[in-house]
Amino acid sequence: MTHRPINFSAGPAILPQPVLEEASAAVSALPDLGLSILEISHRSPTFAAIIDDARARLTRLLAIPDTHDLLFLQGGARGQFAQIPTNFLGRDQQAGYVMTGVWSEYALTEAQRIGTARVVASGREDGYTSLPRLDTLDPSELAYIHTTSNNTIYGTQFQRLPDFGHTRHVCDMSSDILSRPVDVSRFSLIYAGAQKNCGPAGVTLVIVDKAWMREAPEGVPAIWRYQTQATKGSMYNTPPTFAIYVVGLVAKWIEEQVGGLAAMAERNRGKAQLVYDAIDNSKGFYVPNVGDPSHRSLMNVGFRTSGGDECDARFVSLAAEEGLSGLKGHRLSGGLRASIYNAMPRDGVETLVGFMERFRKT
Amino acid sequence: MTHRPINFSAGPAILPQPVLEEASAAVSALPDLGLSILEISHRSPTFAAIIDDARARLTRLLAIPDTHDLLFLQGGARGQFAQIPTNFLGRDQQAGYVMTGVWSEYALTEAQRIGTARVVASGREDGYTSLPRLDTLDPSELAYIHTTSNNTIYGTQFQRLPDFGHTRHVCDMSSDILSRPVDVSRFSLIYAGAQKNCGPAGVTLVIVDKAWMREAPEGVPAIWRYQTQATKGSMYNTPPTFAIYVVGLVAKWIEEQVGGLAAMAERNRGKAQLVYDAIDNSKGFYVPNVGDPSHRSLMNVGFRTSGGDECDARFVSLAAEEGLSGLKGHRLSGGLRASIYNAMPRDGVETLVGFMERFRKT
Repeated sequence: MTHRPINFSAGPAILPQPVLEEASAAVSALPDLGLSILEISHRSPTFAAIIDDARARLTRLLAIPDTHDLLFLQGGARGQFAQIPTNFLGRDQQAGYVMTGVWSEYALTEAQRIGTARVVASGREDGYTSLPRLDTLDPSELAYIHTTSNNTIYGTQFQRLPDFGHTRHVCDMSSDILSRPVDVSRFSLIYAGAQKNCGPAGVTLVIVDKAWMREAPEGVPAIWRYQTQATKGSMYNTPPTFAIYVVGLVAKWIEEQVGGLAAMAERNRGKAQLVYDAIDNSKGFYVPNVGDPSHRSLMNVGFRTSGGDECDARFVSLAAEEGLSGLKGHRLSGGLRASIYNAMPRDGVETLVGFMERFRKT
Repeated sequence: MTHRPINFSAGPAILPQPVLEEASAAVSALPDLGLSILEISHRSPTFAAIIDDARARLTRLLAIPDTHDLLFLQGGARGQFAQIPTNFLGRDQQAGYVMTGVWSEYALTEAQRIGTARVVASGREDGYTSLPRLDTLDPSELAYIHTTSNNTIYGTQFQRLPDFGHTRHVCDMSSDILSRPVDVSRFSLIYAGAQKNCGPAGVTLVIVDKAWMREAPEGVPAIWRYQTQATKGSMYNTPPTFAIYVVGLVAKWIEEQVGGLAAMAERNRGKAQLVYDAIDNSKGFYVPNVGDPSHRSLMNVGFRTSGGDECDARFVSLAAEEGLSGLKGHRLSGGLRASIYNAMPRDGVETLVGFMERFRKT
């Protein structure tokens, strides 16, 4: 393609170009084998090597300790919203949910269908444009606390992930996993739908404390028990083989081309800074969704023009004409949004910023 | 590839060559759009057209009536083993399971974790090499009866799908969906993991009676309630976009290249006949797993040589050298197995039969 658009979609989202090329070739035929990645058995030596490699690379990148297992599941973050309380919220227990957007709300509502869950902190009054204070939160007597690390719709992100001491911390990292180093040992469970920073839609990464996982009640249906998949190396049922393959390619790209998560984070900070600077230095022409820089997301930059909805719409359509796609804001927040995940190259962001400057001056 | 192997794998399994080529190109970039199928939003007009087309083609092919909904879900058949009783097996109800293999056993065991389910007919005593009689079965007072239409491990298949009158019939068609016409109106729920006859691993087709679906209790977690996905057009959460895209391509291939399910069934009967004839005319050299022709699967032909395990192993390795891959039997049944799903061309089967003749004579 000579005119490949620059993809600012919030997800399913941009993937690294070398990953797309290798995946495209593999859908035709895997080298040496001559069969498509889509048509090989998950029990074949070829796929065993693929899933082992993906697991090993993610384990190295995230420095997942021996105390935790990495699982490749199906069903997305929505599936985890139900699976977590099904495994970890007993009849006499309570879970605490930190509200930072509608996805936290969905997670809470689903947990409440299964057990007792309550809000322990919320940014709702603020339209979720800032993160709630957590320092006054009392985590004692909670089975776990659930947080969302990055909020795609509003453009907020915990720059420093909260620490709840000895209380178990469950974190939805769907939109910023692999964007920065994380101390996995501080979490009892991390989950992420792959389709933003990790790969295509259809596989969900779950990193779970082994000891905790074993505490889940026996009566839980086998397919929804984490322990079942852990025992079977994520192959209790036929896994989403192609999606796992692509996640492995993304992990390889981060390890070998980017140089790991510290380098990835540095790159992401630089990219986000470019967009936020373009907003903050626009003399009020661009208005950020999130004022406080310490609450701003490095993944999803939400903003609007001071010219109103019509001006925003013109921004989106002129940008699209110049090959910048996916800049319309989420229907809940309106305005504009640039999703600049891992795979967005710096020059893609520079092109956006150049367009923002020109648009402002016309 | 000049030497593409012929793929007799039981699943994930062979896909039509034109499907693989179109999918490979789309992973690089979709025509007109310039973005990969992996990186476009499930809310984009492009993907809306893809899922609508896949749904429309499957609805036409299977003649799905207005009384039923077609859903694209995640979690495989194993997920359905739990989701079905979660939705449809109330506290005071009983479900009946027809045992035709370990997959039926897994389905039963999972249902028993959720409610009351019992065996109503079983071929277990026979090592599942024949189908149990169903004419003496009393379906009354059962919430539903669960069957498995084709049994990949043993090589049995209901040539005529059973009819339980007014009792609700739930059928796992994972390994023979789209291989023949089916009267959908006779089923309350049909489900199928896509990775044998429909597409890649990672998407599960569910065809469900709308009225029944609405009866599921309110307390079921939203993600596991069929009604939730029906209301949202299978996009309650981010769907497995690529897998759905490939299923659509497979449906297009059946409609436009094969000529529909009656033609597909004719083709499948002819292919299976070739292999069964090679077995039955081998003067006892090849021994079929399933003796009664009316119980034999047209999808998975199980057999062994009369020369014992060593001879079987030699068959597998010599076949592989000639480009015939995946002929080893399942570990539970041993011996040999040729999976000849929809996408296996007749000349692939002819090559196999030619090899069988030559192997027999050496």
